[in-house]
Amino acid sequence: MKILTLLTDFGTRDYYVAAVKGTVLRLVPPPHPMLVDLGHEVPPGNVATGAFLLAAGSAPFPTGTVHLAVVDPGVGSERRILAVEHRGCCFIGPDNGLLDHALAEGRVVAVERHDLFLDAPGSTFHGRDRFAPVAAALLRGEPLSALGPTVDDAVRLGRPAPRRRGKILEGHVVHVDRFGNLVSDLPSAWLEEPPVVARVGDHEIYRLVRCYTDLPAGEPGLIPGSLGTLEVSLRGEDLAARWQTGPGAELRVELR
Amino acid sequence: MKILTLLTDFGTRDYYVAAVKGTVLRLVPPPHPMLVDLGHEVPPGNVATGAFLLAAGSAPFPTGTVHLAVVDPGVGSERRILAVEHRGCCFIGPDNGLLDHALAEGRVVAVERHDLFLDAPGSTFHGRDRFAPVAAALLRGEPLSALGPTVDDAVRLGRPAPRRRGKILEGHVVHVDRFGNLVSDLPSAWLEEPPVVARVGDHEIYRLVRCYTDLPAGEPGLIPGSLGTLEVSLRGEDLAARWQTGPGAELRVELR
Amino acid sequence: MKILTLLTDFGTRDYYVAAVKGTVLRLVPPPHPMLVDLGHEVPPGNVATGAFLLAAGSAPFPTGTVHLAVVDPGVGSERRILAVEHRGCCFIGPDNGLLDHALAEGRVVAVERHDLFLDAPGSTFHGRDRFAPVAAALLRGEPLSALGPTVDDAVRLGRPAPRRRGKILEGHVVHVDRFGNLVSDLPSAWLEEPPVVARVGDHEIYRLVRCYTDLPAGEPGLIPGSLGTLEVSLRGEDLAARWQTGPGAELRVELR
Repeated sequence: MKILTLLTDFGTRDYYVAAVKGTVLRLVPPPHPMLVDLGHEVPPGNVATGAFLLAAGSAPFPTGTVHLAVVDPGVGSERRILAVEHRGCCFIGPDNGLLDHALAEGRVVAVERHDLFLDAPGSTFHGRDRFAPVAAALLRGEPLSALGPTVDDAVRLGRPAPRRRGKILEGHVVHVDRFGNLVSDLPSAWLEEPPVVARVGDHEIYRLVRCYTDLPAGEPGLIPGSLGTLEVSLRGEDLAARWQTGPGAELRVELR
Repeated sequence: MKILTLLTDFGTRDYYVAAVKGTVLRLVPPPHPMLVDLGHEVPPGNVATGAFLLAAGSAPFPTGTVHLAVVDPGVGSERRILAVEHRGCCFIGPDNGLLDHALAEGRVVAVERHDLFLDAPGSTFHGRDRFAPVAAALLRGEPLSALGPTVDDAVRLGRPAPRRRGKILEGHVVHVDRFGNLVSDLPSAWLEEPPVVARVGDHEIYRLVRCYTDLPAGEPGLIPGSLGTLEVSLRGEDLAARWQTGPGAELRVELR
Repeated sequence: MKILTLLTDFGTRDYYVAAVKGTVLRLVPPPHPMLVDLGHEVPPGNVATGAFLLAAGSAPFPTGTVHLAVVDPGVGSERRILAVEHRGCCFIGPDNGLLDHALAEGRVVAVERHDLFLDAPGSTFHGRDRFAPVAAALLRGEPLSALGPTVDDAVRLGRPAPRRRGKILEGHVVHVDRFGNLVSDLPSAWLEEPPVVARVGDHEIYRLVRCYTDLPAGEPGLIPGSLGTLEVSLRGEDLAARWQTGPGAELRVELR
């Protein structure tokens, strides 16, 4: 049984996600693929958040999984559809940076199989009319190479990489999770020694702990997070709301 | 493998959806059907929105799919349970207009198989105790005709059909999607020529475009939408919130 | 095909639920288990609500289902992981009361199979790194007894049981559902005769009905609910919001 995950900014109050799933199930004869929601609450049009969630959420899936991602403010325009093979899995999405994590090492194909596209009304729902049939083709066993030519000019996000300059580590908040934790891109492994101080904007963090319960109430702390990067947390509270901060904020750590 | 979709107004914070699914899985021996959420965020008791989402979301699914819909403010009362065969799929729901799109052409049966109903506490959860076992019977292979007599007096929504009078097209907003787009019931095909002006309430729309990116910032436009009907959109903004409008509002288009 | 349900407080905007599912699918070779969401909107860290939803939502599932529950404010600390066999199903969760309903009668094992745990960065995501692999082991067919020793000191919620003293019934609101209904723990069967009056705080309820439509507009009523306990409802309105009440509030019923 094949597995298809879906990441979109469609939300869950409309019929959009169901229409994509129904289309895939119609186009892939039994045995139908297993459908797994990677998430549909990406803020509308927010490609950077979508890219973060796709990279993080797709990582644990088994080899052979097809990951379909649609955060596509340019729907209906001439932006390309990409299919990328990365670490034994396939990623399908618009050419707008959404597949960023896979583009660096993966084999990237620009989909040119117009014969796969559905003849549907309007140009506003490529998730159903173009992306779903491309995913279905892969799930039916068509090889990536049959979808179009290999390309090397895919749109990248161009996010600044975290930096280490002497005793100073500089990174950014890349995500705020449901609990209000600030997830950064600073590798936890860079903390070879405890920090003197860390800063997010004007806020200072003096504590480094292993898990949330090790934090004293009311005091923020650095925690090595589940993606191998540092998080900033406040026990039992929404730190992002408290500090009015979020993705893009700088996290700066001074080592001893 | 059979497919069952579920559309409800149960939301996702309670155990209600899971209880329906668990009941179906208990009553349909392996191979279990695949369960697909059509959506559970229908506003509580809003039959019209549920009917719209059911019609739109069920359309792409393959022949043989069973669609279970429960938006049922009359739960526990004497309203009937209907099962409808429509375009090779079966729809199950309360007799309150929720299955409206299928009723026009479909074969409609009033379910009278009380032997299927579960002997459960209370009369408040027919989704689990009555609708789920009826869906399970169909998924086990029982024919529609075994569920009860054919009827022709099902409750309809009685929504006004869109009208074309000379150069004037009159329809209504039938849905506001996550992005704030106003989805109408006016067929895009009626726009044989560009409109002079369109109106939603006091708001005027002068532009007709193919996709969201063709809209200049700040100016609303008509777009042929993914259901074959016209939408009104504002690029990157929630137009429904901006205009304080929603389902039921009239959309009036004047042709040249 | 095995069934795995998932109940968490992870929400749906992050990648956390997908990461748990992907891990299970990677660790359980085909035929993959069917994954069913029991719910992910448990308020962050709210073990009591999680326990209620787990008990209620898991009940209808067939024998052999594995139920994985992660509401785990103590993640990363030394709290144990439990696996419980209860009525032919297995429950996995932290030792913090979340599995309360199963603990009373079930066989309880403290998981000590550190060989199953994943070697992952950080100590903040045991859902993915510890709970998922334990669930996967059960889904691959390992017996409960292979996971660790039987224990009898699991953490319980210690919720007060509903009481019946002569003509007075005393219980508590244990849940507010999406519709604003107050779900209590008072068995509907205790109402052998109609009540004289029921009270939630200062609010009085004089009416007992079978279903929501039997309530006159604007007047609250007692209804025998779908879990075999009494609910308090206001037709078409959110009673919990109206009365500003919720879980923990006392429901007191006086019989004639």
